[in-house]
Amino acid sequence: MKYLIFANRARKEGFENVERLFEAIAFAEFVHARNHFEALGSVKDTAENLQVAIDGEDWESEEMYPAYRAVAELQNESMAIRSIDFALQAEKFHSEFYARAKRAVESGRDIEIGEIYICEVYSYMADLKVERCPVCGAGSERFRKF
Amino acid sequence: MKYLIFANRARKEGFENVERLFEAIAFAEFVHARNHFEALGSVKDTAENLQVAIDGEDWESEEMYPAYRAVAELQNESMAIRSIDFALQAEKFHSEFYARAKRAVESGRDIEIGEIYICEVYSYMADLKVERCPVCGAGSERFRKF
Ligand SMILES: [Fe+2]
Ligand SMILES: [Fe+2]
Ligand SMILES: [Fe+2]
Ligand SMILES: [Fe+2]
Ligand SMILES: [Fe+2]
Ligand SMILES: [Fe+2]
Repeated sequence: MKYLIFANRARKEGFENVERLFEAIAFAEFVHARNHFEALGSVKDTAENLQVAIDGEDWESEEMYPAYRAVAELQNESMAIRSIDFALQAEKFHSEFYARAKRAVESGRDIEIGEIYICEVYSYMADLKVERCPVCGAGSERFRKF
Repeated sequence: MKYLIFANRARKEGFENVERLFEAIAFAEFVHARNHFEALGSVKDTAENLQVAIDGEDWESEEMYPAYRAVAELQNESMAIRSIDFALQAEKFHSEFYARAKRAVESGRDIEIGEIYICEVYSYMADLKVERCPVCGAGSERFRKF
């Protein structure tokens, strides 16, 4: 995660090779984490993983972000409040999508979903290509397709 | 990181849309983390980020993995030892690449490096396309290009 943030910054400073280096090593670290996880026997099946994901998302929107928000309000940090509110709304969507996926997987099917677009500014998630982000106004070139 | 591991597992179980959903939401979480980081003012410049990366890699290969390894040896966990040894060797390479990048960036240049290939089995890193991974024997289709 840290390396991907650094990659982003390297690109902004014009160091494109350093950007690729951070991205490549971030992938290597993912391979390590996955291997250590597997050696510990802690990768469960997809239905269980989806429940872990739902629980994590719900904990974020019900406990974590409200606590952050209270602190940010107390300190009048308007930029932090803005960033928290966007994230909070996004976590609720994540939880709903994971819940749909879990229902599908539990009945032995894949989730029915087309291309997924994520705005790289505040992570707005759309299931069809939009001209502009309805949250931040960014153009479609700022959306990443999955 | 967790979501990317879950994505990998979903693919193995044949749920390709769930795989994409995990990947898309992992990217959304990256956007959140980056935004919170930026709101806290903690994204430094690339030269400083490279030093943070070097320190982290060195700490892993000098402190963290040797400690893990000692525990794994004590418990005769041969699979864990194997996974640790591969990771340990990789962290040393990461540190060297980051050090090269830092020297370049500090003299105002980008690092000179071509395509980077990472084996998805044990993260072996190569700077030119290889037929087979010299560590695990995987074919070139198991390498990801950056
Ligand atoms: Fe690692
Ligand atoms: Fe989320
Ligand atoms: Fe947006
Ligand atoms: Fe998040
Ligand atoms: Fe590393
Ligand atoms: Fe390999």
